[in-house]
Amino acid sequence: MNDLMIPLKEDGRIPMYRQIYDYIKNEIQKGKMKAGEKLPSSRLLAKNLCISRSTVDMAYDQLLSEGYIESLPCKGYYVCRMEGLYFSIEKKVFTEKTSEQKVSAPVYRWDFALNGIAPGGFPHNIWRKLSREVLSQEGDRLFQLGDPCGEFGIRRAVAEYLHSARGVDCDPDQIIIGAGNDYLLMLLWVILGKNRKIAMENPTYLSAYYDLIHMGCQILPVGQDSQGIRIEELEKTGADTVYVMPSHQFPMGMVMPLARRMELLKWAGSREGRYIIEDDYDSEFRYKGQPIPALSGFDQKGCVIYLGTFSKSLAPSVRVSYMVLPPALIKDYLALGHLFSVTVSRTDQKILEMFLGEGHYERHLNRMRAVYKNKHDLMVRCLKEMSHICAFSGENAGVHLVLKFCNGLTEKEAVRRAKEAGIKVYGVSEYRIQKSEKEENMVLLGYATMEDKDIEEAMKKLKEIWEI
Amino acid sequence: MNDLMIPLKEDGRIPMYRQIYDYIKNEIQKGKMKAGEKLPSSRLLAKNLCISRSTVDMAYDQLLSEGYIESLPCKGYYVCRMEGLYFSIEKKVFTEKTSEQKVSAPVYRWDFALNGIAPGGFPHNIWRKLSREVLSQEGDRLFQLGDPCGEFGIRRAVAEYLHSARGVDCDPDQIIIGAGNDYLLMLLWVILGKNRKIAMENPTYLSAYYDLIHMGCQILPVGQDSQGIRIEELEKTGADTVYVMPSHQFPMGMVMPLARRMELLKWAGSREGRYIIEDDYDSEFRYKGQPIPALSGFDQKGCVIYLGTFSKSLAPSVRVSYMVLPPALIKDYLALGHLFSVTVSRTDQKILEMFLGEGHYERHLNRMRAVYKNKHDLMVRCLKEMSHICAFSGENAGVHLVLKFCNGLTEKEAVRRAKEAGIKVYGVSEYRIQKSEKEENMVLLGYATMEDKDIEEAMKKLKEIWEI
Repeated sequence: MNDLMIPLKEDGRIPMYRQIYDYIKNEIQKGKMKAGEKLPSSRLLAKNLCISRSTVDMAYDQLLSEGYIESLPCKGYYVCRMEGLYFSIEKKVFTEKTSEQKVSAPVYRWDFALNGIAPGGFPHNIWRKLSREVLSQEGDRLFQLGDPCGEFGIRRAVAEYLHSARGVDCDPDQIIIGAGNDYLLMLLWVILGKNRKIAMENPTYLSAYYDLIHMGCQILPVGQDSQGIRIEELEKTGADTVYVMPSHQFPMGMVMPLARRMELLKWAGSREGRYIIEDDYDSEFRYKGQPIPALSGFDQKGCVIYLGTFSKSLAPSVRVSYMVLPPALIKDYLALGHLFSVTVSRTDQKILEMFLGEGHYERHLNRMRAVYKNKHDLMVRCLKEMSHICAFSGENAGVHLVLKFCNGLTEKEAVRRAKEAGIKVYGVSEYRIQKSEKEENMVLLGYATMEDKDIEEAMKKLKEIWEI
Repeated sequence: MNDLMIPLKEDGRIPMYRQIYDYIKNEIQKGKMKAGEKLPSSRLLAKNLCISRSTVDMAYDQLLSEGYIESLPCKGYYVCRMEGLYFSIEKKVFTEKTSEQKVSAPVYRWDFALNGIAPGGFPHNIWRKLSREVLSQEGDRLFQLGDPCGEFGIRRAVAEYLHSARGVDCDPDQIIIGAGNDYLLMLLWVILGKNRKIAMENPTYLSAYYDLIHMGCQILPVGQDSQGIRIEELEKTGADTVYVMPSHQFPMGMVMPLARRMELLKWAGSREGRYIIEDDYDSEFRYKGQPIPALSGFDQKGCVIYLGTFSKSLAPSVRVSYMVLPPALIKDYLALGHLFSVTVSRTDQKILEMFLGEGHYERHLNRMRAVYKNKHDLMVRCLKEMSHICAFSGENAGVHLVLKFCNGLTEKEAVRRAKEAGIKVYGVSEYRIQKSEKEENMVLLGYATMEDKDIEEAMKKLKEIWEI
């Protein structure tokens, strides 16, 4: 094919070389120019099209580098052999599915959601101020790759916070910063090895449960009494790892007393390679006196892995969690050599470091504790008027309560009636690893995201509809 | 023990209840008060210490809630039974290890690093401006938990970018946003299932190799010719998945021509469940004509998983990568139900969405392409004067070059001589999955982070010391 006639437009909108390139590419894609077919020499084509040879060379170079044509020495250019070639180039505009297209969710007037923070609870102004400072002061350094475990500054701030507020005695070098607990659990799974048998409290925090299940872990559910996980039952499962939430079990809300904590530590210490994963997810909000020290603070044998997060205490979208590994495990991790890059941007790490270091976090927690304490007290007042309907527990900490019906109402019926009244409450059965056969009679009410007025209205309504 | 004498300080520095709490806790911790020992009633202790009873009650409540003491109905308070109790409370100050304490690394005057960005290459001012806008406009919504796959806005912006710049024809709903490729590979491993046999180009990007190894994948190394991975060899390995970098293989630097891409797609399409992981890590920097469309753009059978990142093109610390899953895999992922929470903060997602949407990314890429093109041309000029020492390749794209010695110099000797002269260069053998027996004779020189002056000086020096 030496008579390639390309209809060139000379209005300057598309460069000449590009028009030649597009034309030949299209011909090849449409199969009009076939594998093995010879192209005109660039000299000849330039002459035919009355343009400069370098323009044709540019087009040929691009076709060459994309593999549409090949150059055979002393012979010229030929169309390459390609299989199943197809390539679309029209412009596309994407629009988000409207709510109609999405699966329609029931609409609730009130939602006693179990996650989320109080409206207005995020310290915007300080965060903005710190962001500005970080972005203007730090310069280029901040945008180079950092320490795979997180920058020293944030790890030190976390270690100091854990030491003073949670009684955890760790070195910054034991800490790994990560974008959320899901990610840290994945990392932990890499560090601990893949054949762990992990016991979990039942019911439990299903997000962690599914993380572990997705990774292929064997999960062994263990029952709880009023003090927390049953140690005897744990022993019988043959688990080598246990995932617990001693400072405020989710969803049951109990605080594990010291004696049970000691038993748990004894369980872990009594056999080589046993580990406790302590998820201290909402230890920050405690209404009676100061927080109970973390289990990790009592760990003498290096068998507690501590997980904490700013997603619960600061905002769900602040994707920063931290994990404290016992010395032996951090050594194992570092010995892997090629570590996973840190998942939190250095900007966010620096902002958070300053947020902790300058005392903003402490003040924020105190402020939020007061906010939640008010909501908590309001909830408790409302619930006391419902004592003929249900008892409640889990009131010492966290931002949700557990209601247990004493008037014969079942969970299913309670959730159904609430839904009819436009109120979303959460059945405990949803958080069970194995669904039990017998009827449940407990529901969960989170109050963090509810306005006081709404708590009053919704609780009044619940009292009416839950009467039997 | 009814005569508990607690030395209270009345200077108001520590609240009374706290002093009582601290004193009793310490006595229990030190073993001076033993399990089963009875405490004085709060009425009696208050009388003895001449303080109000409610103060003592507060202290007892705290001790109770922490499990140090227990209350027996109609009997009083008793010290609890605890095992191995110990808890330190001194304040701690952490300091970063000085460089002396750290393992001393050899000091280089010049480093032809293979990652990092050009000094001054990050668009600080725009990033700062967008950050401010996002933080001031978005309000609370930004701090609630978002879509586990990433917000629609950023996914749409990425889909549009991929469509116009990379020829990838995908819907925003096929995209998952994640904090770095390491994380996305972990996620992919969850999605693809755990028994994958993954073929990789050899040599390859070791970070991905180790990610997959850490997760327990079976990795099958496959050789390459000048066009990329050898398809016949790939077929023989029995792999069901292949990880490739068609737009600029790391470290060898070749661009996979269209014909080989088609062969690769044919390999994947010829058996159910075969997948290609296309890591398009530095497709953005290409010096001849416009970028070559991604492999994914030619995928008719939904067997290409596309991985892209802003860490290479924007800054290593911008921990935002994205993965385009074929429709069947995204369906599988969503069907898992309980998804991993997104690992990138909504603030960063929004900033990046605006960065792309307002055309800043395109301008940034064009600017950086010019910056790197200059460095690239300078490198090529220097290397042309070394043609009696080495040939070079990988010059069509990316920010590093591959040198192959033709004067008998080995990799080992070249790296050693460079080190002596204070120059860090990287041996290709470091990136081999299986170390080969025979002597290597190739090194890698990255130029992204080098100033022009330094390139000239270092290359001049290399020319001197690499003469034989």
